[in-house]
Amino acid sequence: MKIIELNKSITESNDADAKRLRERLTDEGVVLVNIMSSPGSGKTSFLLKTIADIKDRVPVGVMEADIASSVDAERIEAAGAKSIQMHTDGMCHVDAGMTERALDEMGYKGLRLIFLENVGNLICPAEYDTGAHLNVMLLSVPEGDDKPLKYPLMFSTSDALIITKSDVKDYFSFDEEKCMAAVKRLNPDIETFTVSAKTGEGMASWEEFLTQRLPK
Amino acid sequence: MKIIELNKSITESNDADAKRLRERLTDEGVVLVNIMSSPGSGKTSFLLKTIADIKDRVPVGVMEADIASSVDAERIEAAGAKSIQMHTDGMCHVDAGMTERALDEMGYKGLRLIFLENVGNLICPAEYDTGAHLNVMLLSVPEGDDKPLKYPLMFSTSDALIITKSDVKDYFSFDEEKCMAAVKRLNPDIETFTVSAKTGEGMASWEEFLTQRLPK
Repeated sequence: MKIIELNKSITESNDADAKRLRERLTDEGVVLVNIMSSPGSGKTSFLLKTIADIKDRVPVGVMEADIASSVDAERIEAAGAKSIQMHTDGMCHVDAGMTERALDEMGYKGLRLIFLENVGNLICPAEYDTGAHLNVMLLSVPEGDDKPLKYPLMFSTSDALIITKSDVKDYFSFDEEKCMAAVKRLNPDIETFTVSAKTGEGMASWEEFLTQRLPK
Repeated sequence: MKIIELNKSITESNDADAKRLRERLTDEGVVLVNIMSSPGSGKTSFLLKTIADIKDRVPVGVMEADIASSVDAERIEAAGAKSIQMHTDGMCHVDAGMTERALDEMGYKGLRLIFLENVGNLICPAEYDTGAHLNVMLLSVPEGDDKPLKYPLMFSTSDALIITKSDVKDYFSFDEEKCMAAVKRLNPDIETFTVSAKTGEGMASWEEFLTQRLPK
């Protein structure tokens, strides 16, 4: 497992870089999925469960972006997926230039699906196109049902919303119906899934949605 | 309750502004406490419980910083504390200039303690001195014990760490000892409290710590 230090991209034109990276990966038959959420929403556990369920069918890689440490990439690598740890030099987001450098540094020959686990942050990552084909955000039950009202941008720009930690629903006053109504007002086309990486609840629907998006 | 739109501060010298604001408030006998955490760590519930417990002894005001919505300020106002909602125009932090504008807009005559509930974000708020006398961060049990490793700056710069949602400890694999050891390595002088705003566990110690810091 490699660790690379990333900081400000050399180029300022992130949107153009992102478009170019997306086209390059499409040509190569690889799908890039950007996973965003608050710290502690369960991104790594969700990815570990997804990888365990699909890795016999789909070769997967994961790029782990964090301010510091490599605990997530170590967990991913222990689960048998190709992995790289990206350090963002204090920055709270990942852009297309950083994503491309990490992809090239990790190497992805033979992979069909690559996850980018973005920095834990419900604000900044939504402002940068990483070049991903699919933007997926997680919201965990303990965080509360008011988050779409307070952090509208990420809910507006994501292709899919995963409500995580559904196994602890009984211990929190999370009004799923109210939350989903607020999300749909911001983004009527968003796909939604409610899952528990611990019990496996809801994971099959998400994995079907995901694998349908891979090139045949 | 007022709502004000804040964006980039007019002045660039945030550290000087913060120092000046802190001195101004000290002269006026007011203590400003900056509360930081991830989205959904329970900042507002923690403040509501603190206010309910101390408001007969200490006149309290709360400035609620969010990207959007005014749900938090409405909850605070309903609890009987003076409140203002700050909108940060998409920005993921609050600086000293924004804090001072919100203070003057809210008005704080007769108050002895003012909380600034910062934007829900474990990264950016730690980079800006708001002018507060005390920097307090929350980490909720569901977020996980690895957060000090991944987001070291806030843990390093806070005066106190509050572990919240202790009532759900049995449902999560949160290793408090391991977490605290990592925090103390980053910041040996940090004061730590473990609380549940729901059951009231641990709140008295925190409130004693807090009220001891108020001018006599």
